[in-house]
Amino acid sequence: MENRIVADSTKNIAIVGATGYTGRESIALLLAHPYARIRRLYAIDNIGKPIGEVFGQFHGRLDLAIEEPDYDTLVKECPVAFLCLPHAKSMDVGADLHARGVTVVDFSADYRLKNVAVYERTYKTKHTHPELIAAAVYGLPELYRDAIAGCSLVANPGCYPTGAVLAVAPLVRRKLVDATRMIFDAKSGVSGAGRAPNPRTVFAECNESVEAYAIGVHRHQPEIDQELSGLFGGPISVHFTPTLVPMTRGILTTAYLELTETMSAEAVHALYAEDYANEPFVGLLPLGSYPRTADVSGSNRCHVGLYVSGRRVVAVSAIDNLIKGAAGQAVQCFNLMCGFDETEALRH
Amino acid sequence: MENRIVADSTKNIAIVGATGYTGRESIALLLAHPYARIRRLYAIDNIGKPIGEVFGQFHGRLDLAIEEPDYDTLVKECPVAFLCLPHAKSMDVGADLHARGVTVVDFSADYRLKNVAVYERTYKTKHTHPELIAAAVYGLPELYRDAIAGCSLVANPGCYPTGAVLAVAPLVRRKLVDATRMIFDAKSGVSGAGRAPNPRTVFAECNESVEAYAIGVHRHQPEIDQELSGLFGGPISVHFTPTLVPMTRGILTTAYLELTETMSAEAVHALYAEDYANEPFVGLLPLGSYPRTADVSGSNRCHVGLYVSGRRVVAVSAIDNLIKGAAGQAVQCFNLMCGFDETEALRH
Amino acid sequence: MENRIVADSTKNIAIVGATGYTGRESIALLLAHPYARIRRLYAIDNIGKPIGEVFGQFHGRLDLAIEEPDYDTLVKECPVAFLCLPHAKSMDVGADLHARGVTVVDFSADYRLKNVAVYERTYKTKHTHPELIAAAVYGLPELYRDAIAGCSLVANPGCYPTGAVLAVAPLVRRKLVDATRMIFDAKSGVSGAGRAPNPRTVFAECNESVEAYAIGVHRHQPEIDQELSGLFGGPISVHFTPTLVPMTRGILTTAYLELTETMSAEAVHALYAEDYANEPFVGLLPLGSYPRTADVSGSNRCHVGLYVSGRRVVAVSAIDNLIKGAAGQAVQCFNLMCGFDETEALRH
Amino acid sequence: MENRIVADSTKNIAIVGATGYTGRESIALLLAHPYARIRRLYAIDNIGKPIGEVFGQFHGRLDLAIEEPDYDTLVKECPVAFLCLPHAKSMDVGADLHARGVTVVDFSADYRLKNVAVYERTYKTKHTHPELIAAAVYGLPELYRDAIAGCSLVANPGCYPTGAVLAVAPLVRRKLVDATRMIFDAKSGVSGAGRAPNPRTVFAECNESVEAYAIGVHRHQPEIDQELSGLFGGPISVHFTPTLVPMTRGILTTAYLELTETMSAEAVHALYAEDYANEPFVGLLPLGSYPRTADVSGSNRCHVGLYVSGRRVVAVSAIDNLIKGAAGQAVQCFNLMCGFDETEALRH
Repeated sequence: MENRIVADSTKNIAIVGATGYTGRESIALLLAHPYARIRRLYAIDNIGKPIGEVFGQFHGRLDLAIEEPDYDTLVKECPVAFLCLPHAKSMDVGADLHARGVTVVDFSADYRLKNVAVYERTYKTKHTHPELIAAAVYGLPELYRDAIAGCSLVANPGCYPTGAVLAVAPLVRRKLVDATRMIFDAKSGVSGAGRAPNPRTVFAECNESVEAYAIGVHRHQPEIDQELSGLFGGPISVHFTPTLVPMTRGILTTAYLELTETMSAEAVHALYAEDYANEPFVGLLPLGSYPRTADVSGSNRCHVGLYVSGRRVVAVSAIDNLIKGAAGQAVQCFNLMCGFDETEALRH
Repeated sequence: MENRIVADSTKNIAIVGATGYTGRESIALLLAHPYARIRRLYAIDNIGKPIGEVFGQFHGRLDLAIEEPDYDTLVKECPVAFLCLPHAKSMDVGADLHARGVTVVDFSADYRLKNVAVYERTYKTKHTHPELIAAAVYGLPELYRDAIAGCSLVANPGCYPTGAVLAVAPLVRRKLVDATRMIFDAKSGVSGAGRAPNPRTVFAECNESVEAYAIGVHRHQPEIDQELSGLFGGPISVHFTPTLVPMTRGILTTAYLELTETMSAEAVHALYAEDYANEPFVGLLPLGSYPRTADVSGSNRCHVGLYVSGRRVVAVSAIDNLIKGAAGQAVQCFNLMCGFDETEALRH
Repeated sequence: MENRIVADSTKNIAIVGATGYTGRESIALLLAHPYARIRRLYAIDNIGKPIGEVFGQFHGRLDLAIEEPDYDTLVKECPVAFLCLPHAKSMDVGADLHARGVTVVDFSADYRLKNVAVYERTYKTKHTHPELIAAAVYGLPELYRDAIAGCSLVANPGCYPTGAVLAVAPLVRRKLVDATRMIFDAKSGVSGAGRAPNPRTVFAECNESVEAYAIGVHRHQPEIDQELSGLFGGPISVHFTPTLVPMTRGILTTAYLELTETMSAEAVHALYAEDYANEPFVGLLPLGSYPRTADVSGSNRCHVGLYVSGRRVVAVSAIDNLIKGAAGQAVQCFNLMCGFDETEALRH
Repeated sequence: MENRIVADSTKNIAIVGATGYTGRESIALLLAHPYARIRRLYAIDNIGKPIGEVFGQFHGRLDLAIEEPDYDTLVKECPVAFLCLPHAKSMDVGADLHARGVTVVDFSADYRLKNVAVYERTYKTKHTHPELIAAAVYGLPELYRDAIAGCSLVANPGCYPTGAVLAVAPLVRRKLVDATRMIFDAKSGVSGAGRAPNPRTVFAECNESVEAYAIGVHRHQPEIDQELSGLFGGPISVHFTPTLVPMTRGILTTAYLELTETMSAEAVHALYAEDYANEPFVGLLPLGSYPRTADVSGSNRCHVGLYVSGRRVVAVSAIDNLIKGAAGQAVQCFNLMCGFDETEALRH
């Protein structure tokens, strides 16, 4: 029903890994995209099942069933593929499809880390296509808009790095912060852990509980380090604490920064305003207001709020981990890569 | 940003009572409507406040502030008004605007009950415009599509009645049920209680708790009775138990019916399939599947599932109380009244 | 720390299946029991792990580790065993321990159903010890207090049956209800599904959602039928709909009954008051009040509220599914079997 | 029922402000206290209402109604009073009762801050009994056990300060941290905001949302500063960010500290182990484990976990804000003041 208009410019899309949460969210967004047509849904589970049975929300809305991946067909039919696969599973598929001319948006971490050694240490796996890493563009439009528009392989950012980088970029790129003392305390909804059942994400375990986990060792930390170091023009190694909170969607990132010199709250706010003035998806709140994850839930927006006192800055950002932290950002990149309006299908 | 295209056919809309949840949801839906332009936001609180401060989700997305109601201006500028007001507050405003040529979608109960005595008993207030009740059309498109399209005053249905009626209409209109033994056990999210703080809806009171309330005396019961009696062609007085469950959105209605004769599950299912085949927003699940409120959350859809055994039918429906149970249904009616595609702005 | 007093009367207890939720709750209750001493914790997972690591809530409070089941040791050391095992796993262990003189409280369904054919059909497994079924007492003290006190094998009731039976017993035992039209609509927290991860109980699936499931085919239905038929003195086959709601603990059961004759609300209330006057754990609410699960959360109490209109009765009960619906009821039975005050360790 | 044993040593207790959450929790704990007898429940709302109707959890468990405060009766009957009042309301009542010989546990902030100017600035109110401040003991037993045991007026600590101070005390008292760079990022359940409805704590507002608030200006910050400065032996001004998370109970406090010199994780852990070895309510988790609020929910315990890397320490504590953060700590102080076992009624 949603995919009526199949104009010349419409792109057929294959979603590989369609039965996880990022696959589901990609489908939901693309269903409302005027120039996208979901053509194939691939996964290794639920083969043959209509997508409306896998995810009840698509009942009566999309008439496709899950199929086993068939990359020859994909290449023939789909100029674009969303790879909603876990890390290590994505690099071969991504390299193969890319080599055969498919425009790839890769949701995994496989092409995000530019330093292959860091990747291999972090993900404890050999990278099979290090030669492709340089060609992949880190899909954060607020940092790499032009490069994304001109590339054919996007490494879609992690959810925590998206929230962390957008919270602090204006100060980091101006070298106004003490690079040795950047602390990120992130609070994430449980959907970030994915759809596969595990003892930690069972409702009765995480409801009515908050816990910090993987302090100092989370896999997204090197990704944050990489992006902030690039902005800063020098090495940054952040302190990162992820926290699990009992909600489905959303990440609130509280960044504690130390300015290199005292600045007024207004002055700091003005720098953010300058950088984010034309960003379609970043909302800078007035001084005294702080973001709530509910306000960006279901949307591709990132809200940022600031507290400044002396040299202490607390920068808070809120995103929906499944949208701006995953599928929405992927669609934003897809729009840029295809020359569509960057906000297409993302305005709600 | 969202309201770019102001074509000839675009309707200016005023939302009266813009600071409650149904106001908020109406704004959210209409922002994405290609032929609607939100022109005025009226309320009696938050006067002068930008809507993006009242509801953070609109920050940077809609550049309007809350104003005190000014109906002269409204009549001049807006051919359509959404009245998101509590019962008793709506009847005068609705009558006045209607008399001055405004197309009105009234969210309150004021024009829903056709029997003025029932209204006055149920809402414990005098009806000031009984003469207008007959002209108002009950805004359930699945029952009154043509009448809605031809009218200028819609009484937008209550959330519970929407879920209840859609769950049982195919059997009731065919007189296949024992009209004296219709039981509705509805489970509603807390947003149904509105945005005004009250001791019952405080988080720490309703989180981790389920409670039944207002058994046999809920104000929506006469509304359910009226609609089912109309369908049945004879008096129906249902047994209705609303239950509060710890979630924000959604109503699951479990209807217990007794068939007048034994039917197979397949036969019952076929009747529903016949009635709902062309309904854009009703999804009939296959036998053996029951709806989840999460699957319709944020959408205008209603999912229905059936269990049949001997003469016992359990019909279960799920809606989002704020969308199909309020703002989405209002937009659906607005689309019909204005001659737009019925699904405009409601396809996600 | 909690187990200081080991008096003559103190009973050593083994908990078999200590790593599930009912095991955990049993430990929590027994830790505060003045005459119980938890001696062995058996399970087939987490072998060797201190219980304080399996369940953080016992950190520093109980110095025992999980062991592989060793029934010879159990028989030697522990006069009492709590079998927190799934159905089919419990019947052999229970029979063996019982034969060797251990007092057994069995949490599974294995000895609940008196009709072995019904058991085998319901649980799709052969019963290996049908000879023991008659000796087992259904552990609902409100129905079988004396029998429990005199037995050595208790079949601890299911959570749904506990809530259902207590909601209607006073009317059923007096044959005041139409036995063919008893409807139970139960709303349960997610912990009822156990601790093992499954796709249905993952937080992001069941948070913000309500769904009915297993309508007419839930395994607890024959158990409800059996107990109500016994009370009624004739066959009862109820209509039972379980519903999953997004909370951790609690069951609210809404029973829809039809009286055989019209009664006043006061008269119905008086019958309940008569039956429950001396029940230490049943609280009958005044007319006009309905129970909330939060009010009995963490406690062994069952609250009951009534609505009566003509011949229609709506009886609502609330329990904590893990306490009165499982571990608390087990401790209550244990108290009765050992001659302790029935409320020992259950007064909070 | 719970208050059967009224031995010589049993203390009659009045709870002033019995209809709020800390009043409710105090009642719940004291009901299970073998040497306490709740004698009077005072409040300014719900006068005449049985406590079992105000809080359903006490239905059938405590036969007292709410009364208007009558301090003459209180003084005559009750040697102990729990003042569960908001700040500014407590100072006069506390001073009066104290002067008349009543042992007072004051839940408000009125006697917590030793510097009257800081109090008046923070709470924007004149202190009417500055002369009593010195006599009041800050009721954190882990810091002031002996003083509490010997005093007759306890200023029961705030919930955030309890979690913050216990997380860092071992390092602060040894002056091992950079006092200028102490950051506390606390995540609190919504019950911390009290029982009175306000637009922020309505379920549909805070469910599925996380937000930071009052950054740098929260009223508990001067209290944290005071206690840490005292421990440190010099001025400390911390950076404090409270965050609201969608759960009812619990505070997780994540403290970011910089050591004055590099230490191993084991060495830091050993200091905590030394300080907390004999604390009945502080549980130090092994390295690599971090606390979950669910594990201390409903209990008076505080769990602490540590991460150490170079000079960076992340110390995480979890408490139940209503128990160790309020009513449990009050009972602990009461036990100390009366010479009872410190853990009486707090062992569950």
